[in-house]
Amino acid sequence: MRGAPAGALPCYPDAGPCRRTPPETPRVTLDIAAHLTRDADRIAAALDDALDAAPLDGEIARPDRLIAAMRHAGLGGGKRLRPVLLIAAARLFGRDDAGVVTAGAALECIHCYSLVHDDLPAMDDDDMRRGQPTVHKAYDEATAILAGDALLTLAFDLIAAPAVHADAEIRLAASRELARAAGLGGMAGGQMLDLASQHAPRGETDIRELQAMKTGALIRYAARTGARLAGAGPDDIDRLTRFGEIIGLAFQLADDLLDVEGDASALGKAAGKDAAAGKATLVALKGADWTRAELARLVEAATTELQPYGTQAEPLLALARFVAIRDR
Amino acid sequence: MRGAPAGALPCYPDAGPCRRTPPETPRVTLDIAAHLTRDADRIAAALDDALDAAPLDGEIARPDRLIAAMRHAGLGGGKRLRPVLLIAAARLFGRDDAGVVTAGAALECIHCYSLVHDDLPAMDDDDMRRGQPTVHKAYDEATAILAGDALLTLAFDLIAAPAVHADAEIRLAASRELARAAGLGGMAGGQMLDLASQHAPRGETDIRELQAMKTGALIRYAARTGARLAGAGPDDIDRLTRFGEIIGLAFQLADDLLDVEGDASALGKAAGKDAAAGKATLVALKGADWTRAELARLVEAATTELQPYGTQAEPLLALARFVAIRDR
Repeated sequence: MRGAPAGALPCYPDAGPCRRTPPETPRVTLDIAAHLTRDADRIAAALDDALDAAPLDGEIARPDRLIAAMRHAGLGGGKRLRPVLLIAAARLFGRDDAGVVTAGAALECIHCYSLVHDDLPAMDDDDMRRGQPTVHKAYDEATAILAGDALLTLAFDLIAAPAVHADAEIRLAASRELARAAGLGGMAGGQMLDLASQHAPRGETDIRELQAMKTGALIRYAARTGARLAGAGPDDIDRLTRFGEIIGLAFQLADDLLDVEGDASALGKAAGKDAAAGKATLVALKGADWTRAELARLVEAATTELQPYGTQAEPLLALARFVAIRDR
Repeated sequence: MRGAPAGALPCYPDAGPCRRTPPETPRVTLDIAAHLTRDADRIAAALDDALDAAPLDGEIARPDRLIAAMRHAGLGGGKRLRPVLLIAAARLFGRDDAGVVTAGAALECIHCYSLVHDDLPAMDDDDMRRGQPTVHKAYDEATAILAGDALLTLAFDLIAAPAVHADAEIRLAASRELARAAGLGGMAGGQMLDLASQHAPRGETDIRELQAMKTGALIRYAARTGARLAGAGPDDIDRLTRFGEIIGLAFQLADDLLDVEGDASALGKAAGKDAAAGKATLVALKGADWTRAELARLVEAATTELQPYGTQAEPLLALARFVAIRDR
């Protein structure tokens, strides 16, 4: 599963003739946005399939309302950042097939479930998401709770699919790490700390820990799991893990900055909510100028981390820039 | 991992001297209730451990409130029917170690999460469970939603633990089947159908399908997974699967009957709720006499299914009787 020849560009198997000579100015000539959009579409198609048939083997009654609510949550758009990052990391090590997309779809199920539950009245109480009513608004609260539960559960069905990797040990590791990134010591734990931090003063260390759990853990998982599923060695997996940690930090800083600067369209949700909720962020603690400088520093750190891969790392670095500088 | 000598009784490794001669009247002399209580305690201890340390590796902030709510949900008592069934099925095929208990703890996490979410105001709106305030009453709704999510997620961490089985393929199959039993095509889908069926007329087939998903899937999983983890062959796994399906049916019928007959103490929750909620049950459709006869028939069917295992099947049959005849 490993490696295109040095200097070659990764390419899509079904995307027509593939340019095998690296461009002189890759940032301009590589149509990375189109690449990433196509990967996001592949994820949506995989989720569509999974919600159509996969877990409904055997003689069961079809819970149509639940499926419709899960489709509302999973197929209503979004950047698909996490699975796109997973696919790009796998492609760096020469793997780009349906199994990697399935793993990405599993990860996206986790992300989508978290949005459905976070939007509930008892949590962030949001009515709109991605220009659509949130699931509890379009359906009802009970259906939204169940749709989130069922998306979370579906993730562990998908990540165990044989196509994800031939070696069961590796699929199992991907499954267990997903549970840890999503659970008590990761996303769910971070969300609890975030809720508890409202209107409570928090220092930089606390904020960083909370954010590493709440948003960092899944993004870190995406980068390292893509590498692992493509057969990368331990050093490469470590490198991609560090890259994922940098992207996770940049994602949260950029999100907090957009919230302060009130750019609802780039955020894809209402702005100004953090201050209104009394949430402690690094932007609130250290200011917008510090944040912009830190984002630039993180993009540089990401670039340095991926230096050994040369131009093949360009799609991943484009993702890093996209995450850090959301409105450009 | 297979087989105690024919005619021998299964026993606990740490429970002192083990009687190796089958008793002449096993239903009386085997202290099955004590066995089952001890297994339930082993599950509680495993959950206690899991909520103490396991998923909290690395440098993270400790979400104490979330952990406390998960402990409230997971360690507040309960019959532990599903994991006790899993352990008893494994013991029938000669396995009884900490790894089986870990698998049982994973299954119990799924069951406990479902109770926390089902009790929420938007779902069944219950204030009390097992003589304690429900999680959203003891904490708050946001914490209850997150505690359920984190318990569900923890299940997939535990089931992947190396101790569960040496063969990653078998652990992975146990994990994927758990996702299917709990998700869209199982418990979560059944709960959706149950909510949708309130005040709607439903026929026997619909009710049976709904219940097979809502409560049957996890109980069936318990019996077949115990056998599989102990190295049972395909025919034995099929037999235990059918046994699990029978137990699942009996469990639901007995639950519905107790609800009608108003025995809150045997139920462990408020009685009379099904009729108040307008839920369609087989008891409501066919009457209490039919239900009692059907329960007796199911116990006989369970006994016939396990005939090939002789007296070694006695703990499993005691469980079947306990499930069918809850108040005796």
